[in-house]
Amino acid sequence: MVGAMAPTIDFWFEFGSTYSYPAAMRIGPLAAAAGVGVRFRPFLLGPIFKAQGWTTSPFNLYPAKGRHMLRDVERVCAELELPFQRPEPFPQNSLLAARVALAGLEQGWGEDFCRAVFRAEFGAGRCIEDAATISDVLAGLKVEPAPALAVARSDAIKARLRSETEEAQQRGLFGAPSFVCADGELFWGNDRLEPALRWARKLSP
Amino acid sequence: MVGAMAPTIDFWFEFGSTYSYPAAMRIGPLAAAAGVGVRFRPFLLGPIFKAQGWTTSPFNLYPAKGRHMLRDVERVCAELELPFQRPEPFPQNSLLAARVALAGLEQGWGEDFCRAVFRAEFGAGRCIEDAATISDVLAGLKVEPAPALAVARSDAIKARLRSETEEAQQRGLFGAPSFVCADGELFWGNDRLEPALRWARKLSP
Repeated sequence: MVGAMAPTIDFWFEFGSTYSYPAAMRIGPLAAAAGVGVRFRPFLLGPIFKAQGWTTSPFNLYPAKGRHMLRDVERVCAELELPFQRPEPFPQNSLLAARVALAGLEQGWGEDFCRAVFRAEFGAGRCIEDAATISDVLAGLKVEPAPALAVARSDAIKARLRSETEEAQQRGLFGAPSFVCADGELFWGNDRLEPALRWARKLSP
Repeated sequence: MVGAMAPTIDFWFEFGSTYSYPAAMRIGPLAAAAGVGVRFRPFLLGPIFKAQGWTTSPFNLYPAKGRHMLRDVERVCAELELPFQRPEPFPQNSLLAARVALAGLEQGWGEDFCRAVFRAEFGAGRCIEDAATISDVLAGLKVEPAPALAVARSDAIKARLRSETEEAQQRGLFGAPSFVCADGELFWGNDRLEPALRWARKLSP
């Protein structure tokens, strides 16, 4: 239980990002143990990558880096006892999942949805671009798929995801996962979750 | 003390690489505690970056990434109680330092030299492109600068650095620091030192 005056951290992630998966699975218990509140902030890396001239994931643009990343994520997940499979296509287009997540975060089932999407995508290798996969995930959470998808496709949610992504860019984000503390301090990467929580704690009253 | 049958790890680093600095300062005691031997392998990232179309450090090519990296290295060094200063120009051309290091590794003062170069460059912000800085570092280790620099500039050492860099590329290296275990398993990044040592230990007889 994290109180109202507790420090909080913004957890910015992208459903297409491999390292966002272990971060999403780890952040809840670690933040609770540190007494830090967490805000889940899904966003899109695509527009940010595009702005720096990339048309796809850097892991596709630089094959040696991509090979290491896949092997490294396998090792990271193995240490955490999380299953890992590379989905096809890679990276996945995360637009629909991110919109549904924003709808869910307003309705109280968002965090569970985010974890379930990551498990489907990187634990089971499923294609989260398909509305059918997202519907399965929703049904697994006992959320009616049709109304949830309708809200996700509303103009309000579309605009919300655009403004979230713009905020991410303004805060200096260039990759995912990223953690931003109340003072704006930015940490990038699953392996920076613990230092980010230590930083957030130092800011607490 | 690490015995002849102990597992070993290749520590590939680049004197221009910020994260190679904390890795170089950490690897000795951590590897000794893990019972793993270490081979220091200086190489040049420039030719590898060039082969993937980069003309300078990715931290210069992608400013948001570069800003985070400098802040992150500051934080990493602060936790380790290592001083950190960004040298000018950034990144430094590491050709001379790498050649002298290869000479020193054949003569028994190489590892001390590597740590002293990193301290001069990133601890004190000195320019390691200057032969005067390298001479100061050598003198601090009680190594005669003139003969060491002469060996470093020999055709044999120049060819050696080229072949080391080619080997790095063949092993799939794309950044520094990197750690390669006896079975070829590759780990990239200062934060992957501990997992690399755990991997190396698992291979021991």
